[in-house]
Amino acid sequence: MNKTTQKIMYLNPVGFDAYDSFFASMVKENKNENTEVHITSLPSHVGKMDNLEYRTYNALIAPDVIRATQKASQEGFDALIIGCFYDPFLLDAREISGDMVVVAPCHSSIEIALKVSNKFSVIIGQKKWEHEMHHTIRSYGYEHQLASFRDVNMNVREFQQDHNITGSKLMEASEKAIFEDFAESIILGCTLEFGFYKEIQSKLNVPVIDPSIAALKQAEQMAYLKNTYNWKPSRKWSSQAPPKDDILQFGLFNHEYEFGNRIIVS
Amino acid sequence: MNKTTQKIMYLNPVGFDAYDSFFASMVKENKNENTEVHITSLPSHVGKMDNLEYRTYNALIAPDVIRATQKASQEGFDALIIGCFYDPFLLDAREISGDMVVVAPCHSSIEIALKVSNKFSVIIGQKKWEHEMHHTIRSYGYEHQLASFRDVNMNVREFQQDHNITGSKLMEASEKAIFEDFAESIILGCTLEFGFYKEIQSKLNVPVIDPSIAALKQAEQMAYLKNTYNWKPSRKWSSQAPPKDDILQFGLFNHEYEFGNRIIVS
Amino acid sequence: MNKTTQKIMYLNPVGFDAYDSFFASMVKENKNENTEVHITSLPSHVGKMDNLEYRTYNALIAPDVIRATQKASQEGFDALIIGCFYDPFLLDAREISGDMVVVAPCHSSIEIALKVSNKFSVIIGQKKWEHEMHHTIRSYGYEHQLASFRDVNMNVREFQQDHNITGSKLMEASEKAIFEDFAESIILGCTLEFGFYKEIQSKLNVPVIDPSIAALKQAEQMAYLKNTYNWKPSRKWSSQAPPKDDILQFGLFNHEYEFGNRIIVS
Amino acid sequence: MNKTTQKIMYLNPVGFDAYDSFFASMVKENKNENTEVHITSLPSHVGKMDNLEYRTYNALIAPDVIRATQKASQEGFDALIIGCFYDPFLLDAREISGDMVVVAPCHSSIEIALKVSNKFSVIIGQKKWEHEMHHTIRSYGYEHQLASFRDVNMNVREFQQDHNITGSKLMEASEKAIFEDFAESIILGCTLEFGFYKEIQSKLNVPVIDPSIAALKQAEQMAYLKNTYNWKPSRKWSSQAPPKDDILQFGLFNHEYEFGNRIIVS
Amino acid sequence: MNKTTQKIMYLNPVGFDAYDSFFASMVKENKNENTEVHITSLPSHVGKMDNLEYRTYNALIAPDVIRATQKASQEGFDALIIGCFYDPFLLDAREISGDMVVVAPCHSSIEIALKVSNKFSVIIGQKKWEHEMHHTIRSYGYEHQLASFRDVNMNVREFQQDHNITGSKLMEASEKAIFEDFAESIILGCTLEFGFYKEIQSKLNVPVIDPSIAALKQAEQMAYLKNTYNWKPSRKWSSQAPPKDDILQFGLFNHEYEFGNRIIVS
Amino acid sequence: MNKTTQKIMYLNPVGFDAYDSFFASMVKENKNENTEVHITSLPSHVGKMDNLEYRTYNALIAPDVIRATQKASQEGFDALIIGCFYDPFLLDAREISGDMVVVAPCHSSIEIALKVSNKFSVIIGQKKWEHEMHHTIRSYGYEHQLASFRDVNMNVREFQQDHNITGSKLMEASEKAIFEDFAESIILGCTLEFGFYKEIQSKLNVPVIDPSIAALKQAEQMAYLKNTYNWKPSRKWSSQAPPKDDILQFGLFNHEYEFGNRIIVS
Repeated sequence: MNKTTQKIMYLNPVGFDAYDSFFASMVKENKNENTEVHITSLPSHVGKMDNLEYRTYNALIAPDVIRATQKASQEGFDALIIGCFYDPFLLDAREISGDMVVVAPCHSSIEIALKVSNKFSVIIGQKKWEHEMHHTIRSYGYEHQLASFRDVNMNVREFQQDHNITGSKLMEASEKAIFEDFAESIILGCTLEFGFYKEIQSKLNVPVIDPSIAALKQAEQMAYLKNTYNWKPSRKWSSQAPPKDDILQFGLFNHEYEFGNRIIVS
Repeated sequence: MNKTTQKIMYLNPVGFDAYDSFFASMVKENKNENTEVHITSLPSHVGKMDNLEYRTYNALIAPDVIRATQKASQEGFDALIIGCFYDPFLLDAREISGDMVVVAPCHSSIEIALKVSNKFSVIIGQKKWEHEMHHTIRSYGYEHQLASFRDVNMNVREFQQDHNITGSKLMEASEKAIFEDFAESIILGCTLEFGFYKEIQSKLNVPVIDPSIAALKQAEQMAYLKNTYNWKPSRKWSSQAPPKDDILQFGLFNHEYEFGNRIIVS
Repeated sequence: MNKTTQKIMYLNPVGFDAYDSFFASMVKENKNENTEVHITSLPSHVGKMDNLEYRTYNALIAPDVIRATQKASQEGFDALIIGCFYDPFLLDAREISGDMVVVAPCHSSIEIALKVSNKFSVIIGQKKWEHEMHHTIRSYGYEHQLASFRDVNMNVREFQQDHNITGSKLMEASEKAIFEDFAESIILGCTLEFGFYKEIQSKLNVPVIDPSIAALKQAEQMAYLKNTYNWKPSRKWSSQAPPKDDILQFGLFNHEYEFGNRIIVS
Repeated sequence: MNKTTQKIMYLNPVGFDAYDSFFASMVKENKNENTEVHITSLPSHVGKMDNLEYRTYNALIAPDVIRATQKASQEGFDALIIGCFYDPFLLDAREISGDMVVVAPCHSSIEIALKVSNKFSVIIGQKKWEHEMHHTIRSYGYEHQLASFRDVNMNVREFQQDHNITGSKLMEASEKAIFEDFAESIILGCTLEFGFYKEIQSKLNVPVIDPSIAALKQAEQMAYLKNTYNWKPSRKWSSQAPPKDDILQFGLFNHEYEFGNRIIVS
Repeated sequence: MNKTTQKIMYLNPVGFDAYDSFFASMVKENKNENTEVHITSLPSHVGKMDNLEYRTYNALIAPDVIRATQKASQEGFDALIIGCFYDPFLLDAREISGDMVVVAPCHSSIEIALKVSNKFSVIIGQKKWEHEMHHTIRSYGYEHQLASFRDVNMNVREFQQDHNITGSKLMEASEKAIFEDFAESIILGCTLEFGFYKEIQSKLNVPVIDPSIAALKQAEQMAYLKNTYNWKPSRKWSSQAPPKDDILQFGLFNHEYEFGNRIIVS
Repeated sequence: MNKTTQKIMYLNPVGFDAYDSFFASMVKENKNENTEVHITSLPSHVGKMDNLEYRTYNALIAPDVIRATQKASQEGFDALIIGCFYDPFLLDAREISGDMVVVAPCHSSIEIALKVSNKFSVIIGQKKWEHEMHHTIRSYGYEHQLASFRDVNMNVREFQQDHNITGSKLMEASEKAIFEDFAESIILGCTLEFGFYKEIQSKLNVPVIDPSIAALKQAEQMAYLKNTYNWKPSRKWSSQAPPKDDILQFGLFNHEYEFGNRIIVS
């Protein structure tokens, strides 16, 4: 049974919806014909964080990622994207996702980069991010193919303020990654570095992966595979979901979860 | 300046305070003279989970661990114990802990086990736990000294129901760990496996580490070192805390955090 | 510029075309609407090998894989599949593939398995295969997520002889992989194990990945990404192709390469 | 049974007692109230080495470390410190230590550094030391948390000659470790780098671990845990001690071992 | 039974025999008295490649390496040297080598370097080579003893054009490897870097390993051990050779393999 | 300058000379024509240990290994063999060996085994040995090629007591290593397991490496390479020897070192 349409949730896991329209445009431009994508962010009760640069911020949004995942699964989504390059709570969300597949931008970007090059570098905003991302990449098993991290000394909210400045900083860092660290491809290490991959790619002549697009396309692919081949999440051993009785008894999902505003692109 | 008293918070990170008195007894029996320990659990709004066996449950308590950490730091605690053997959100809590040191039972237990043996096994409740704990132990760098996990096919809430059953299952699993997996020491892999280490140790004649006691003693040690040598958390690079301005602007800690009931042992 | 059609070459790298029609059926059933796939095998001059179980056989087909890759690239294919689970000469072929992306079944299958489970096992024909595949999986960085290899003590040409026998052996091995080695998903470790994934998946209730389908779908995905985002192979550093002058001088591709019979599915 | 006093042997494993009084002062200033510490070095028959910079020197003192360990165990010490940052013969000494725990400064320092930071650097005297220490740190499992070694191009006996010179060199190397290698904490990589941690820590504002103090405090902790919880050395498998019959027959400990001069601090 | 003479095949795996006389001189000067060495290259049908710098070239010579190995084994050679520093198809050739041992220069050189030093660097022609060689060295298990690669920005055919230029570039790169990367020995990373080791060794005063000589001597050693102790290739598990029946049926070695010109040094 | 004769010291590093004649016979039967070998053990002052099964015993012989190395170097030996399968103090001895090369049986055996197979097992006397040997093999980089350790539950002195018993136990363990652990070659993991390799090899039909012979042949090879190519120990960085002045001042080698009885085979 091959469903005509794949339903995908693009979750920007911050309590701040100002970027939703950006991601909606990205989705509009890049989604497959028979994909329906809902773009949303977290409800604001978490705090109006516009970034997840710190482990603290990551932890604060954890339950919302979980509840959003569980709710999206209930609503019948085929795949969910956790739209932050830290890939926050990816394994956790996968546990509670039912039949829905969960993907995230760091992992998705690397999968693509390594099919068109042997070594990649990640261009990040601040040195601070490197430790957590390095840890994540090591846990995926890709450390030996990582050429370097390069930071541009900008925080997340600066990325979209002045495109000329951001663009030239990302260009310079990418160039150093290639010529000093011997990267063969570039991954932009934040979903808010969108709008830049094309120019850098065209100027430096190596693949430059945009993480939001990467995540969207891998989500579509997995949603399709799930619907077509029934390759849906295993629920065996470490992939086992919490028992339903416990969930009820603990009252974990009693209150209807409310996504933030939702933009639907179909 | 060597403070006379070390102040320690023992946080049982579940939304369920029935075990608090158990841990209070443990603390009473085991704490140093000049340590004051506050035992607490999470406020019940999280859901009345009595265990953290699933990644889902872990994620749900993340913000409370963070807020509890931040609050304990503000209250002037010297060290905080995140009292679950998954060591949930250890690096995250350390980021927001100010001058307070944060420790956790899995890490603390291994440090002790490896000073009195070359290989340890961890006795867990269910196979399900192994993947997450294995991942954590690998990230600590101790994988090559791990002899095995052995599970007793019990969930957390069964551990304290019938001491005879639990005791004999832990004994049997420990014996197998020693004689089939060549463990030289045993770590009880859940803080609720308390009350058993002495008997197993005495019968099997290898060190058997109780994780709550291990965490308490390492917390006391680090609190003392902090107060005496000023060996307090680094705030450099990946250990950098979120900027105060952002915290204010995002309203992250606006609402006074309320611990669950608190038992003070001094 | 988003080409309407993705052109993909499915290369069965053996000098034996009897299986081509099998793979053509597989492609017909599984390809995307706007994909055109050419199924072919190697010309028979290599020797009429019907399998690549030995490193010797692998080495013997190396130049044909390279020449086929170069030729397919010249013919304007967007992606090439090297259709053997050893992923033979994947990095080598990628060097000479021009703008064409090259994928292979082992790598493709693992990428899918790890998005729907945390640990996978590979069901192989003979113990002999394990060393080379293990080495390959280690070089990809996925070793820590490999639960086990399980062999069914059959050689490649036996797989399609008696479906009942093969089916029950694969089922039994998969079951052991799950219940004794704690696999959470299964990968069928030979492209000739086709025709079995559905039944095993449905009976054992974990994802069972068919490697030919996996490779086909990942090829389609990469072909699309290449055509849409220009994410084509890097030619920097280790991904650099041989200089054209040398190729001419050495006469490497002087003789027009002839694929074996070609079945076109569009 | 919680013994009132912990008895600890601080062994400076060189055949040279000029530093004993330094270490005695260190102990006096830093030990717990109910700890009794004996400071001693090796008898001079080994050769009057004042350092262990070379593997050769290490090997020459091996039997004395073993005999001192065995003797200290017989005398009823609870813990022994092998006071050299190479942690020489730590596993060997642990084998023959009976119920006494053995600790050493490199291992002790890292355990502390990693509870207050995610990455540490080690400041050593000469490049020559790095290989052996790196090997040791790798064998402990801490390599991925090591930011760098930095050497000050001084040998051991120069450290205490001119405090101004040593201090400014250690300061400079620590600064480079932080700002060029991204260390978040500093470990002084020689027990003779004592007297400097406070100033560097206060100026650079990251934890700076003094290895002698670290070893002393971890020894006290383990001695206490041993006396209180009976967490004493395992004698199973690789931790098995040589059979008593063989020891007698080989005459290994026939001659009463004589420590060098002994300073008792109680 | 200790054969008087060891018969060794030195195969320069390129379709270009101009270097054969060079290698013959090398062999003449360096072989043991009771060794007979045949120097040969590949027949020219492969293409007249004078180097193997690219993976493409490697793959193109694969079948000839295999056929040459099989033929040399049949002719009764005791050992075969695959004379290229990539060690191309070493494991593959070993599978089909019958009782003949197969060695290669990279592996042979490292074995020698690590018996006279703790860390080595490899001096290569072009950055391009590093990825493949690094991968090979990692698969051997020697990565942690590799100080660095240093390239001299020359291609293979330039090495023997102007000895002064090549010599001074290799000297400079070796010096940097020692003083900037802390190499303790140097390996010349191409068999065509012959004629230089003595001078660099004598000037820089560290062992400098010539890879052709290294391979020759290790081949002689293994040939002797085989003839004397019957330590010949295992044919168990992954070392199993293809079944004779299949070889016949596939017609793999039907056509008599013709080596290129052969120079015999006895 | 190619010296006619290689001079090699075979040091059995125990304070017990009863096995010297065994090793002398082994040497007589196996050495090259132009090798002169001196077989010796340690002077008895160390204790009359007839084995090194425990780390304690290893440590006790460390200075004698060092002094014997230094003395052998002074006497002009070209190579020294440390004749125990723990390879005790190999790196340490190499530091003080001047121009003499130092080899040891575990390392030598693995080098040979891995040229005739892809995976080896080590047959040891007691489980106790495994931890130290595993650690050594890991530090060499060969862990991923180790199939298993298998012990025969015998101590060193039992090996030569009843050849029938020892032979059948080694045979049985080797068989299990091959058929249960998938070893492709066998290494006898103790120099006192001599006299057995031939029979096991002939019966099980995989290479079975005798460690004393392996060490002897690798020593001859390295001695020859040293004398012929001047590939003698590096003295750079971590391979640097202790300064002569310090050696004099410390009086390290003041007393003429006396080897135990010496058997000369020439």
